[in-house]
Amino acid sequence: MATDAEKLAKLSMDEGSGDVVNPWNVSSSSQKGIDYAKLINKFGSSKIDSELLARIEKVTGKPVHHLLRRGIFFSHREMHVILDKVEKKQPFYLYTGRGPSSEAMHLGHLIPFIFTKWLQDTFDVPLVIQMTDDEKFLWKDLTIDEANRLAHENAKDIIACGFDVNKTFIFSDVEYISSSPEFYKLMCRIQKCVTYNQVKGIFGFTDSDCIGKISFPAIQATPSFSGAFPQIFGGHQKIHCLIPCAIDQDPYFRMTRDVAPRLNCEKPALLHSTFFPALQGAQSKMSASDPTSSIFLTDSDKEIKDKINKYAYSGGGSTVEEHKEKGGDCEVDVAFQYMKFFSEDDERLAEIEKAYTKGELLTGHLKKELIGVLQKLIGEHRERRAKVTKEEVDQFMTPRKLKHNVTCLWAPIQPLIILKFAEPVRGHPGYIASLEKLTRQ
Amino acid sequence: MATDAEKLAKLSMDEGSGDVVNPWNVSSSSQKGIDYAKLINKFGSSKIDSELLARIEKVTGKPVHHLLRRGIFFSHREMHVILDKVEKKQPFYLYTGRGPSSEAMHLGHLIPFIFTKWLQDTFDVPLVIQMTDDEKFLWKDLTIDEANRLAHENAKDIIACGFDVNKTFIFSDVEYISSSPEFYKLMCRIQKCVTYNQVKGIFGFTDSDCIGKISFPAIQATPSFSGAFPQIFGGHQKIHCLIPCAIDQDPYFRMTRDVAPRLNCEKPALLHSTFFPALQGAQSKMSASDPTSSIFLTDSDKEIKDKINKYAYSGGGSTVEEHKEKGGDCEVDVAFQYMKFFSEDDERLAEIEKAYTKGELLTGHLKKELIGVLQKLIGEHRERRAKVTKEEVDQFMTPRKLKHNVTCLWAPIQPLIILKFAEPVRGHPGYIASLEKLTRQ
Repeated sequence: MATDAEKLAKLSMDEGSGDVVNPWNVSSSSQKGIDYAKLINKFGSSKIDSELLARIEKVTGKPVHHLLRRGIFFSHREMHVILDKVEKKQPFYLYTGRGPSSEAMHLGHLIPFIFTKWLQDTFDVPLVIQMTDDEKFLWKDLTIDEANRLAHENAKDIIACGFDVNKTFIFSDVEYISSSPEFYKLMCRIQKCVTYNQVKGIFGFTDSDCIGKISFPAIQATPSFSGAFPQIFGGHQKIHCLIPCAIDQDPYFRMTRDVAPRLNCEKPALLHSTFFPALQGAQSKMSASDPTSSIFLTDSDKEIKDKINKYAYSGGGSTVEEHKEKGGDCEVDVAFQYMKFFSEDDERLAEIEKAYTKGELLTGHLKKELIGVLQKLIGEHRERRAKVTKEEVDQFMTPRKLKHNVTCLWAPIQPLIILKFAEPVRGHPGYIASLEKLTRQ
Repeated sequence: MATDAEKLAKLSMDEGSGDVVNPWNVSSSSQKGIDYAKLINKFGSSKIDSELLARIEKVTGKPVHHLLRRGIFFSHREMHVILDKVEKKQPFYLYTGRGPSSEAMHLGHLIPFIFTKWLQDTFDVPLVIQMTDDEKFLWKDLTIDEANRLAHENAKDIIACGFDVNKTFIFSDVEYISSSPEFYKLMCRIQKCVTYNQVKGIFGFTDSDCIGKISFPAIQATPSFSGAFPQIFGGHQKIHCLIPCAIDQDPYFRMTRDVAPRLNCEKPALLHSTFFPALQGAQSKMSASDPTSSIFLTDSDKEIKDKINKYAYSGGGSTVEEHKEKGGDCEVDVAFQYMKFFSEDDERLAEIEKAYTKGELLTGHLKKELIGVLQKLIGEHRERRAKVTKEEVDQFMTPRKLKHNVTCLWAPIQPLIILKFAEPVRGHPGYIASLEKLTRQ
């Protein structure tokens, strides 16, 4: 019997619609890119609507991030469950990740981290970031040691996004799996719940794929369950997880949500983003392997300026006259789309949209404004990254207790319920003591 | 293109011949059990012939073990390569294992360990013993923690066979994979070299099998390469490995030998044993889950006596008169077969064979003699096992340097060759110093 995840996945592989969205291939036949409304239907997720945005603002007492406001994070699974937790002062944690396949991260790679940092600041919760060096070794022409080195290099860029070391654990699969019995055991338990038929359906694997690829989905699923991090969650298996990611990663977590009840774990909630368009337009994702498709976090001010001017696909008229007469198309204009991702000034963005659509603002001027925004963003990132030391990387990547409000984490849960899902905890006398205290109440 | 291992494996799955031999299923339609001569042809291994036995005696200066002498270890792959190493005073190591699926090990489980201990004593080499608790969790109705507990319980029985703690490392997969980056990296490298098609051909996996099973063969392959044990081999990737095991485990190592050259590692050599017959006869292996099929290492003297008398299949006549007239059939007589495995007295065994075949020795007397042999063997084992402490188990199961003759290991290899295959060695100043010394010569 096909599970929901399998049925949905078959749909996501359907190339007949013109859109292909899976973790290794995203492409669209339309210049406007993927049809995200259709994708929500296909994947069976929910639209992030104004009601949800209003609820997030009500619960957090803060305006939502512009990536939410502007529909870049556009789809979710069970975000309401997370907000219920917050209202009841019950714990949850964040999980996101990166596949370290090259030294140079590009602008698109920043999106989930910028947004995750906002979530961490807003909800004040622990965050785990998985660097899938084993995955990149399996899929790419890389040695495992090189993939591992890239995980550490990329960690610097992630740290430069401003994460709080006291609330963030960054880990390489190669290092953490080979140092955490709890992670490995959970990974085996997931591998026991998922058949080859299922991963074939969900990810489109074939019989010629190596057995490493076939079992990998369990490794990306594992951090969705709090039991994978005993040093953070003291052995608790059922702390809820919220995963912000680009929508192409959803197949992993559909699979994860399918197996969660069988492991007596909670299904992770998700927030999905659209894809950051390549300089050449929205038909595909940026590619780290094609330098003209992307602006890298290592690009100089001049490179940023040259790339935007030379490659950024314009939705404006082909001549100044035509542009002034017919106006520009913001929906396909890459410079405008980039402004939507990175400019924080709503008013100015609205002005630009209006003026560009009318043809009053020329492509050159729009590009110039974008260049300024990106030079500032990347310049500041470059500076922060240069200051990230090896020691700091080591600190983020050391398995350790994170700071989180313990009262908030455990107090509202009834003692008996805690006991029910508490598994034997090794070397956490503090946790055991607090548990004993609770049960004595 | 099908590899040799695949082609051979397809043959091993051929149920048309009446014999099925793979790691999860061994059965024969003949009362005499598996046709081992045919199996050698099918698997493409080599017969252990008198020439090889003579060479082993010549190289070691010792008589060969009765399990070799009596054809119980009957097949090999590249044992001559190992003997070449010994003659050139070059290093090799032993690897064997156990799937800990139940607390009670039976007599059949002892065979590889009794033989491996003889190999270790005779060749004075390091030995690694893999406890595949993750495998048993994936295949059986066991929790992963229970499988891990059984690994420690079974380790006591293995230690009771008399292994030298200074030359032996016993490890649980769950514990060692989650504590050894080198093991995990090597495992990933193997997983990248083997496709689903290959494991389907070799092990008969189907699309309904879980992804854990599908990737498991890489885990059993990994200890065949010395790089998996940097604490023992100082980072050397190309120390030869010799694997004594029952022939049903051969599919794992055909796969391993197939991938070895692609990993720039040495193919492991093998010594294969026949199966220890169940009390009911040689059509199947003993089963730990059927108490009447096996004699357990925990059975009392009375249980041993009762089981042999009640269940051991007799190749004798159905009445004393018939037996005296027609004689007994040693080939199918379980009591005689057990004597062949466990009685060390060649002369007495020859006498028994002669007298039983002629009908001069009655089944009851043969059984009585066997009962004596087994009560002594199991009684002594029980005593030694009772003395094995948790501390001793922990000592055997701690990753550490083993004692082996360093001069023998490294000296005869030319410095330049050492340098060629030396990979970065972490924390082995002794090794590095000796390397520097050699290169300065």
